Amino acid sequence: MNQRSFIHSKNLQTIFYPKSVAIVGTNKVKGTVPGDIFTNILGAELNGIVYPVSPRESFISGVKAYRYVIDIPDPVDLAVIVFPSSVCNMALEQCGQKGIKAVIIISAGFKEVGEKGLQKEKELIEIARKYDMSFIGPNCLGVINTDPLSRLNASFARKFPAEGNIAFLSQSGALCTAVLDYAQAKNIGFSKFVSFGNKADISEIDLLYYLMDDDQTKVILLYLEEITDGQGLIKAAQDVIQKSHKPVLIIKSGRTSAGASAAASHTGSLAGSDEICDVAFRQAGIIRCDNIEEMFNIAIAYAYQPIPKSDKIAIITNAGGPGVLTTDAAIKSGLKLAKFSEETTLILKRSLPAAANIKNPVDVIGDAKADRYIASITAAMNDKDVGSIIVILTPQSMTDIETIAKEIAVAAKRFDKPVYASFMGEADVAAGIRILQNHHIPHYILPESICNPLVTIYNFNQKIRSGENREIENTDVNAEIVESVLLDAERDNRTYLPEYLSVKVIEAYRLPVIENRLAKSDNEAGVFADEIGFPVVMKVMSDDIIHKYDVGGIILNINSKEEAFQAFKTINEQVKKAMPEAIIDGIYIAKQIPKGTEVILGIKKDPSFGSVIMFGLGGIFVETFKDVSFRVAPVSKMEALKMINETNASKLLAGVRGMPEMDIESIADAITRLSQLAINFPQISELDINPMIVLEKGKGSFVADTKIILQKST
Amino acid sequence: MNQRSFIHSKNLQTIFYPKSVAIVGTNKVKGTVPGDIFTNILGAELNGIVYPVSPRESFISGVKAYRYVIDIPDPVDLAVIVFPSSVCNMALEQCGQKGIKAVIIISAGFKEVGEKGLQKEKELIEIARKYDMSFIGPNCLGVINTDPLSRLNASFARKFPAEGNIAFLSQSGALCTAVLDYAQAKNIGFSKFVSFGNKADISEIDLLYYLMDDDQTKVILLYLEEITDGQGLIKAAQDVIQKSHKPVLIIKSGRTSAGASAAASHTGSLAGSDEICDVAFRQAGIIRCDNIEEMFNIAIAYAYQPIPKSDKIAIITNAGGPGVLTTDAAIKSGLKLAKFSEETTLILKRSLPAAANIKNPVDVIGDAKADRYIASITAAMNDKDVGSIIVILTPQSMTDIETIAKEIAVAAKRFDKPVYASFMGEADVAAGIRILQNHHIPHYILPESICNPLVTIYNFNQKIRSGENREIENTDVNAEIVESVLLDAERDNRTYLPEYLSVKVIEAYRLPVIENRLAKSDNEAGVFADEIGFPVVMKVMSDDIIHKYDVGGIILNINSKEEAFQAFKTINEQVKKAMPEAIIDGIYIAKQIPKGTEVILGIKKDPSFGSVIMFGLGGIFVETFKDVSFRVAPVSKMEALKMINETNASKLLAGVRGMPEMDIESIADAITRLSQLAINFPQISELDINPMIVLEKGKGSFVADTKIILQKST
Repeated sequence: MNQRSFIHSKNLQTIFYPKSVAIVGTNKVKGTVPGDIFTNILGAELNGIVYPVSPRESFISGVKAYRYVIDIPDPVDLAVIVFPSSVCNMALEQCGQKGIKAVIIISAGFKEVGEKGLQKEKELIEIARKYDMSFIGPNCLGVINTDPLSRLNASFARKFPAEGNIAFLSQSGALCTAVLDYAQAKNIGFSKFVSFGNKADISEIDLLYYLMDDDQTKVILLYLEEITDGQGLIKAAQDVIQKSHKPVLIIKSGRTSAGASAAASHTGSLAGSDEICDVAFRQAGIIRCDNIEEMFNIAIAYAYQPIPKSDKIAIITNAGGPGVLTTDAAIKSGLKLAKFSEETTLILKRSLPAAANIKNPVDVIGDAKADRYIASITAAMNDKDVGSIIVILTPQSMTDIETIAKEIAVAAKRFDKPVYASFMGEADVAAGIRILQNHHIPHYILPESICNPLVTIYNFNQKIRSGENREIENTDVNAEIVESVLLDAERDNRTYLPEYLSVKVIEAYRLPVIENRLAKSDNEAGVFADEIGFPVVMKVMSDDIIHKYDVGGIILNINSKEEAFQAFKTINEQVKKAMPEAIIDGIYIAKQIPKGTEVILGIKKDPSFGSVIMFGLGGIFVETFKDVSFRVAPVSKMEALKMINETNASKLLAGVRGMPEMDIESIADAITRLSQLAINFPQISELDINPMIVLEKGKGSFVADTKIILQKST
Repeated sequence: MNQRSFIHSKNLQTIFYPKSVAIVGTNKVKGTVPGDIFTNILGAELNGIVYPVSPRESFISGVKAYRYVIDIPDPVDLAVIVFPSSVCNMALEQCGQKGIKAVIIISAGFKEVGEKGLQKEKELIEIARKYDMSFIGPNCLGVINTDPLSRLNASFARKFPAEGNIAFLSQSGALCTAVLDYAQAKNIGFSKFVSFGNKADISEIDLLYYLMDDDQTKVILLYLEEITDGQGLIKAAQDVIQKSHKPVLIIKSGRTSAGASAAASHTGSLAGSDEICDVAFRQAGIIRCDNIEEMFNIAIAYAYQPIPKSDKIAIITNAGGPGVLTTDAAIKSGLKLAKFSEETTLILKRSLPAAANIKNPVDVIGDAKADRYIASITAAMNDKDVGSIIVILTPQSMTDIETIAKEIAVAAKRFDKPVYASFMGEADVAAGIRILQNHHIPHYILPESICNPLVTIYNFNQKIRSGENREIENTDVNAEIVESVLLDAERDNRTYLPEYLSVKVIEAYRLPVIENRLAKSDNEAGVFADEIGFPVVMKVMSDDIIHKYDVGGIILNINSKEEAFQAFKTINEQVKKAMPEAIIDGIYIAKQIPKGTEVILGIKKDPSFGSVIMFGLGGIFVETFKDVSFRVAPVSKMEALKMINETNASKLLAGVRGMPEMDIESIADAITRLSQLAINFPQISELDINPMIVLEKGKGSFVADTKIILQKST
């Protein structure tokens, strides 16, 4: 944690729990932002003192007003600035002088309006640094804290939401008002509600760390338009998820327009940067959502109900059709139907009419009243194979909707298995839905919509519990060798490493390079080849030659000392003839690799998320089908195996069609080593291993060709 | 159209527009099906006379009741039977005697309760046939017709829906009540609303044909649990779509459990039958939906607004975030953002504040009132590049929600481009949404949800207009040859055709078989090989030998008459040694095919949809990746090309990596011929062409191996 982060974390506590708040730049005009914000904070009954600061008024709503914030005689914890942007900076300066550390800047007119605004925004940051202040905004809707210890509504939102354990963070202010309205209608409460606007000072990363330790918060939702520090965001989300076990749900907009600015390097061209964002989120355990509805569907399931202990569901319905559709959706999303025990079956048989379906999905039939629902829910709750229960209701003329809703709530409290409900229709079922929502039974308009949230929560919890993806460092690497190679290159202003140096780098990280030497004379060639063992391959080494084959710079299948001796001469002669001006560093001699399956590995740089590791099977699979997978470094061995399995072509490594199973473990090992190299040496901007030859299981792999490109030193 | 279909079509008109209706088996008990149904039909103010028929009552709700239907002195058009199943059949018999042709059987207790019920259901059908009656049901909710000429509510649904141009057909009765409630809350009206239950007599196919000619209906929605006549359904949907241009939307449940009963033949094992259902629906132009929400999202867009003339949209929003999310969703679903003309840009610049975004998506900013929305909508309507408009609103404190809603409705009426809206939130925007719904502006909770319906409607209309997929018969085929081969096989009780007969069959349909002969002697072999031209391949023909290679029954690369003469002898000797008991029909001689790309073609049988044509690239693509595509026969040339393009591996045919482009046209041609063969000879239960060798573009293809299996004759 750097110094600013430390200051933010202290000041955020003051932002959410101030004992005194100054509304700087307020006025008496209702229906305007400066006016409404004072009405809102007073109306929410803050657990503390509110001071209006207004150059023109001596009181507002009966509360004594001050001309400037420095005129307030008592200490002030939090300032909320609503002045026009022209005087914002002056106001922030005065807050600093007054000793206020926590600030929310509602005012717009900064970065979002262009260069001039950006300049003013930079000044704000300088002022904040000078006084060790932290601020949220500018250009935001404000901050809400429903905790009774605070009851802060420092926003111009129309509504103060209900208390709850969902935190909502948004870069878009306008979206916040829609969300508050949506949530109120569904009786969804919030712990903290933050519109952070231009995030000039306090960012979503600081907020994530704050919410990690916030006892009021169980789930964190984040709407994000712009990722400024991808690696920081990933680290923060990972910390939150692993340390506090709170799920982090993110909507990241701009899916399709993104990617344009992605680096156009070879491996880079295979993935749009939104794909990298997807991968990075998944690796961190972040649940990425496409829209607000999907986000809240998951959030209420997590916030309101216990976590399902198994992925087996029971469905109880009074209409066959929706039962079948829900079964389809459940299976499709990866859930399973529980298989009832004999006892459960017996109870259902006794409790339901003959025409009912007592198998899962249970159909209590259209004329069912509450008694059949109670009997079925209780039986399912008591059945060991059932992990969670989905209750579906359609409004028939005899259905006692409200009683059934109440009984579902009672059952949910009695047992520790989660219950989700869908009362289908609208006006007829409204009262029942309201009862469910008041009792925190997650309700969905369509029963099918329950399945994805359920499986998402289950998987999230499984992943946390398994502690999977903890990456273990390879300790047998030699960073000093790489350090010295890269320093030399930097000194020489080289960005492209010659092959023998590229090999030296990956060899230092114990990637499976083949035994090799650089011969400077025909005699050396003979000796080295003999030491390596035959057959060998010989290649010319020269910075001036890119296409070695074309100039006769490569000879394969060399089987004796004598042949190696001759080959040295032949290569030299051929190359000199083809490119007389080329400077030859020597002839590279390496063991010839047996046949195997070709794979491609690589490192590329993503502008937001840093080093990305790429894997693909060689040949048509990369070139024609773009069948490759990506991970943001670091990559654990387990993650590397997943990465390999993700490609379609990986089936060919597993030993189909009578082909032998190949050494997949050795690929995964190579990936973790590449990942470690990428993390230790971020100046590597691109690394291509193309191909690596994978042998049969147990026999390892060999890198056949490597290329490393470094970042331009600045 | 068969005789029953003809009778149904006449009687359905009477079911929907009866001048007199008998409710057979009704009573005075409110809250029961027999009681409610009489209240409902009376309450809806039928345009005709209602007669209660009740064995116990002399009047109901002030209307004179009759003991039996035959006691009614006047003619009766329609009978609605609500008796318990025990006396249903007797009641239907009496209806027949009375001369009633149109019947709705609400009563349950038939096929759905098991064998005994099934028996009673079969009797119902017999009675109906005897009297040329038609009935809907049994085990259904009933029938509703909102047309003022009828106003029929022959159902036990609580609600009589509003008039509208959407028809809804459902196999599930319980789902109907949920749909009616949902629709009422959203002000969605219906033309016809039918619960058809066990569809013992009148099926969804009859109803589709009825609705094809129904002027009240613009869109047809169908919820289906069981496809009994897949080919009939596809034919009906195709007729409706092509002749009346009405879209048919179907939810088919049981996606995941299906497929278990699919034929386990080689090609069959590559596709679950739900996949075939998907393909068949798509070919017919049916829009398959996963759930009710998706279905109505599309239905209202089609029913309420003109069809977009282009796939370019304009987005107008007062919140940036939702604008970006909608753009993402639009691009993802295949829509395009319109590019505004200079004139439009100028108008927007003049009408909107400086901070607004005047490019598409247009951001009128949070403090926008109706004037900015009107200006932007009008400008977009007048822009030639705009095909449709999406209006997004979030409730800010100054937003005049209801005025904006009214203005959207006004604009939609003034211009002929479709407008769709999303007022985000819930309570705050409710009044605005109600106004939109009353004016038939399709409203969506999330603006992203507009995109799929929009693109679905656009594509549906494009497909109809293009008249694509009209299949043209190949006239150069010789059905007589196939007829005689198959008759011979049937006579011999063979289900497996020997290769030379399989070749004869496909040759008759002008599939590209290679020139070939069957030699019975070494001399013949020499002569035939010479006539064909070298090199040739020779294979043993014997019903007893499956693996010809293993017994030395194949010789390749025969380059002279002499070699052919010898090869005949060699094969005979080798086979006789390996399988002395095998009966040899002769030696098959064929031109050896040059190298090319291997593809696989096939016919398989689907239990619901009949003959299915399969295509895939040979090798790992079929075996490891299951990379195949399917179509239900008949398949047009255009559809065949789509089918080829659908496989991932098809990229390899197009000429990637310096490889030549292959003769894709010749594959498509072969597919249409196979399709025609499958249609003309449904007794072919499986046909495998594996492989067909595809040569370079313009050089054609050659079938290398064929296998035909026939259905067992019964």
